[in-house]
Amino acid sequence: MDAAKVGLLGLGTVGGGTAAVLLRNADEIQRRLGRSIEITHAAGLGIANQSILDASKVKLTEDAFEVVNDPDVEIVVELIGGYTLAKDLVMKAIENGKHVVTANKALIATHGPEIMQAAMARGVNVAYEAAVAGGIPIIKAVREGLAANRIKWIAGIINGTGNFILTEMRDKGRNFDDVLKEAQALGYAEADPTFDVEGIDAAHKLTILASLAYGIELQFDKCYTEGISKITTEDVNYAGELGYRIKHLGITRKTGHGIELRVHPTLIPEKRLIANVDGVMNAVLVQGDAVGPTLYYGAGAGAEPTASAVVADIIDTVRTIDIDASHKVPLLGFKADDMSDIAIMPIEDVETACYLRMTALDKPGVLAEVSEVFALHNISLEAVLQKEPAEGVAKVHLVLLTQKVIERNINAAIAEVESFSDIEGSVARIRLEHLG
Amino acid sequence: MDAAKVGLLGLGTVGGGTAAVLLRNADEIQRRLGRSIEITHAAGLGIANQSILDASKVKLTEDAFEVVNDPDVEIVVELIGGYTLAKDLVMKAIENGKHVVTANKALIATHGPEIMQAAMARGVNVAYEAAVAGGIPIIKAVREGLAANRIKWIAGIINGTGNFILTEMRDKGRNFDDVLKEAQALGYAEADPTFDVEGIDAAHKLTILASLAYGIELQFDKCYTEGISKITTEDVNYAGELGYRIKHLGITRKTGHGIELRVHPTLIPEKRLIANVDGVMNAVLVQGDAVGPTLYYGAGAGAEPTASAVVADIIDTVRTIDIDASHKVPLLGFKADDMSDIAIMPIEDVETACYLRMTALDKPGVLAEVSEVFALHNISLEAVLQKEPAEGVAKVHLVLLTQKVIERNINAAIAEVESFSDIEGSVARIRLEHLG
Repeated sequence: MDAAKVGLLGLGTVGGGTAAVLLRNADEIQRRLGRSIEITHAAGLGIANQSILDASKVKLTEDAFEVVNDPDVEIVVELIGGYTLAKDLVMKAIENGKHVVTANKALIATHGPEIMQAAMARGVNVAYEAAVAGGIPIIKAVREGLAANRIKWIAGIINGTGNFILTEMRDKGRNFDDVLKEAQALGYAEADPTFDVEGIDAAHKLTILASLAYGIELQFDKCYTEGISKITTEDVNYAGELGYRIKHLGITRKTGHGIELRVHPTLIPEKRLIANVDGVMNAVLVQGDAVGPTLYYGAGAGAEPTASAVVADIIDTVRTIDIDASHKVPLLGFKADDMSDIAIMPIEDVETACYLRMTALDKPGVLAEVSEVFALHNISLEAVLQKEPAEGVAKVHLVLLTQKVIERNINAAIAEVESFSDIEGSVARIRLEHLG
Repeated sequence: MDAAKVGLLGLGTVGGGTAAVLLRNADEIQRRLGRSIEITHAAGLGIANQSILDASKVKLTEDAFEVVNDPDVEIVVELIGGYTLAKDLVMKAIENGKHVVTANKALIATHGPEIMQAAMARGVNVAYEAAVAGGIPIIKAVREGLAANRIKWIAGIINGTGNFILTEMRDKGRNFDDVLKEAQALGYAEADPTFDVEGIDAAHKLTILASLAYGIELQFDKCYTEGISKITTEDVNYAGELGYRIKHLGITRKTGHGIELRVHPTLIPEKRLIANVDGVMNAVLVQGDAVGPTLYYGAGAGAEPTASAVVADIIDTVRTIDIDASHKVPLLGFKADDMSDIAIMPIEDVETACYLRMTALDKPGVLAEVSEVFALHNISLEAVLQKEPAEGVAKVHLVLLTQKVIERNINAAIAEVESFSDIEGSVARIRLEHLG
């Protein structure tokens, strides 16, 4: 059988990695697939990584539209990133009847509904394993491996940059700004780190996971998103003293009141396996009603880890290239005519335990005053810690762990506490999940 | 479309779990699959779990052959276990053109080649996700999710009973026999615990993983298998002092000299995520050349975790039920006409680091005498620990960690040391892997 013809859009880090893996492992892939895969067309903005391709076999161009419009290309692999050009290219590829493989989480999370609809109408595949947690085959696990389950919740470390920063803060007592600068120097974080440290990248990925878990539409705009830029070394240390680690988690949970969809720093018990996932690594913990907890761990970014997922998608796509859609896994895991319209909950309705840190004047009665507020709001406390902050003279840090409480209630209690003259500045609040 | 018709063989723990999951999650499964799945036939030896089935809809029988011979059954789900009856039933089902889903690792590991060949000749599917690591979708991960990779090695905690025993020994200082009795009382271990504690069950699973990783035939008889029954509490504690945990691992690795295939207790650095997988849980660490390390964690046994994998296989099978084999994932991950004949290495040729514990007379010069033997065999030592054993009066325990050494060389050194009059009894040897 002829080789499957792939057109590669983007020859940057992931594009270069994809070309390298396809070339290096061509024989092993052919043994698995029974057909070879050939990059026949490639569009690179600039010439980075072009040298990896055999120019005598690959049609190279600066214009990506040439690739998506070339009748010879069967599968378009979009590795450009971003929303605008990438979207136009993917839509055009679909219109031209080509299958699409992409690593673009922003694109799927925000324009996914339109893209999926066009792909279904045209009868082509859109595969995006690399869009969530890089090389970890988490989309395949949720969409196929756990298909027997009702998914109860998913909690994931799905941004490596954020996890690297939090790990360094804990292990070495460094502060956020300091570690961020190193992450940028190491190439883990972009010059503009907003997407990573403010949780937007994680929210893109979580949006996709929630859709696959519950059979709901992609609803990125409904995801509550909070980053790690306000986490202090003291918070990391206090959490440690209390037996917790702070991780930046994406959490989605199906409740009787709707679906939670939220990205934020989270205290989790240090004994949990996922609490021990450090550095740039990713991990996704999935709770199914039949299987119980399962965890998937690996590299969430990088040239070849991401390429591993891209190439797996190419292999799956080639294997079923002339099979009609009814015999394939639905694009979002559930049949398009059987999606659920269960609502995403506003964060104010979500119930979680909380870690609270506040700076108080060091005088008698402050803790009693604060405790009373929580008692009046019917919020039970699990633990209280009183610490002298590093810079503190006549001040103390009060650290409280609450039991589970609905967000709007704790917001009210926090506002009240912040109005006290004995409390300085605002109360830091980090949500806490037991993940048990 | 009509419901897919499933015949269930076995209504014990996993059979009951499978029926329960199929019934409870029928609507969610239909939303994913676009077709319903119905248990139309069931054979139970005894009446356990029959009550879960609706007798007005299910043809119940004591004779499993009635099910595999019934023309109405499309998919036979074999959950009886064992090699003999199960094999006859599976072969008969294939002969009758039925697809087979099984959780039977012993059957696949030992009779897999014959079963796969018959299935390919008859054009039916044989699915066995539940045979390895219960509810963890590890077969899908290795066979599809990581299909872009050359797999370098796999190391797995793939027997929950053994992991439970080692975890209790470490956490509570209990001895092997004591914990084994509790495991039996809790139902984690069989009355005859040989399969679990002597590593045979793990060897079955590892045999399957190795075949999927490298595209080699199933070769259970070539697997080196060593259990945990000789591990002492002292070994567990000494390992801990040196920064390691003892886990019962199945390890398969592709080397320039062939493929390693071995099940044995193993010291691993306590910092590794897999070292922190405790109790009855399973975890499989896979090293791919592109993706790097990925880890898959979850329940390796139990009614519903195993059912989760069984039902996922049924869903996959139904989805592709009238698709020809060339469009499906090959039964063992690689095309049958493109299997590799790279040999499994004898354990004597395998290279690992080692933990050695010996009892020596507490007198000057013994350590020097022992060290000299290792030096003469060109074996470098990483660490030496001298400890008074609990019962010891004029004796000490010498604990050595070696660097990597070929098994036949360390065997020779151990034999020499054991011949010394100052060394009492035999030298305990536990292999050590850094898994880095």
